[in-house]
Amino acid sequence: MEYLQSEYPSICTILDAKRGDIGNTNGGYISSIFDWLGFDAVTLHPYMGRESLQPFLDRADKTSIILCRTSNPGSGEFQDLLLDGVPLWLHVAQSVAREWNAHGNCMLVVGATYPDEMKRIREAVGDMTFLVPGVGAQGGDVKAVVEVGQTQDGLGLIIAASRSIIFAEDPSAAARDLRDEINRYRKS
Amino acid sequence: MEYLQSEYPSICTILDAKRGDIGNTNGGYISSIFDWLGFDAVTLHPYMGRESLQPFLDRADKTSIILCRTSNPGSGEFQDLLLDGVPLWLHVAQSVAREWNAHGNCMLVVGATYPDEMKRIREAVGDMTFLVPGVGAQGGDVKAVVEVGQTQDGLGLIIAASRSIIFAEDPSAAARDLRDEINRYRKS
Repeated sequence: MEYLQSEYPSICTILDAKRGDIGNTNGGYISSIFDWLGFDAVTLHPYMGRESLQPFLDRADKTSIILCRTSNPGSGEFQDLLLDGVPLWLHVAQSVAREWNAHGNCMLVVGATYPDEMKRIREAVGDMTFLVPGVGAQGGDVKAVVEVGQTQDGLGLIIAASRSIIFAEDPSAAARDLRDEINRYRKS
Repeated sequence: MEYLQSEYPSICTILDAKRGDIGNTNGGYISSIFDWLGFDAVTLHPYMGRESLQPFLDRADKTSIILCRTSNPGSGEFQDLLLDGVPLWLHVAQSVAREWNAHGNCMLVVGATYPDEMKRIREAVGDMTFLVPGVGAQGGDVKAVVEVGQTQDGLGLIIAASRSIIFAEDPSAAARDLRDEINRYRKS
């Protein structure tokens, strides 16, 4: 983090650590993640509700990225349950958009492996930004993701790839190729 | 951990870190929590489903403690949503009891602050052990918890108190008092 902050101070840093505890303990995570390590954003589990995550949400200078529809193959076990006729992932998306995002500092994790769900989430939450894992090693389709996930302005997606870049023969080329592929499908 | 393992090797150690990531990343948590730090158990978020947590569940020598009904005041936001009249927390309890617990190494987190829910979870899952936070600083009632949560044999509860012990004027006395209070309500 010291290297990134000194050499590339404009880069947004996300700790994809999927935290989520009671408020008291979250205070410790906030000190370590935001204030000591200096990350701009962290991913968070929604299961314990907004009240537990309020200390993160209250940090208007930082971004809380809430797990909504995760990219893993078995993510539907609970996320797809229809609660009052609406899948849990859509309850989470709606709650974050309508109630949690008072400071405009929330994003949602929406896996590239579920473009149909991403389309419904985009329709439900307006221009909120999605963190999108799953396009690399997990096999998600960049074209499908960009087509259904981008906002009217061709924005709103942070498409993450880790293993497919880090372990590529030429990581810089792999990163550029993915960037170009993403831009190919964006609204101009 | 080195001190505990050398001085009190029979003590069961639980890392209440509420982890939960994709399988690949969970492998790193398992290495650090179980193999390097040497914990016997860890608490886990259910939101991403069994498939994501399988690397933890496969460790038959270690215990996976799944968040079910958490102790925090706002835990009902998603946990109380109903599918066919069944709340999400009960879906989690049933799934863990029926499908996740093939090695008999699962427990559930059930907050002391929700004894009515604890009663229904005990009825649903048989003799599975509950990790019960919330009796100390969070205000849960020990009598209510032990009466509804214990198994037919007067077992099945790990009642945790942290702040109310650590910050007591006499921590040893506070721990003994809580132990005695718990035992007062157990079936003999």
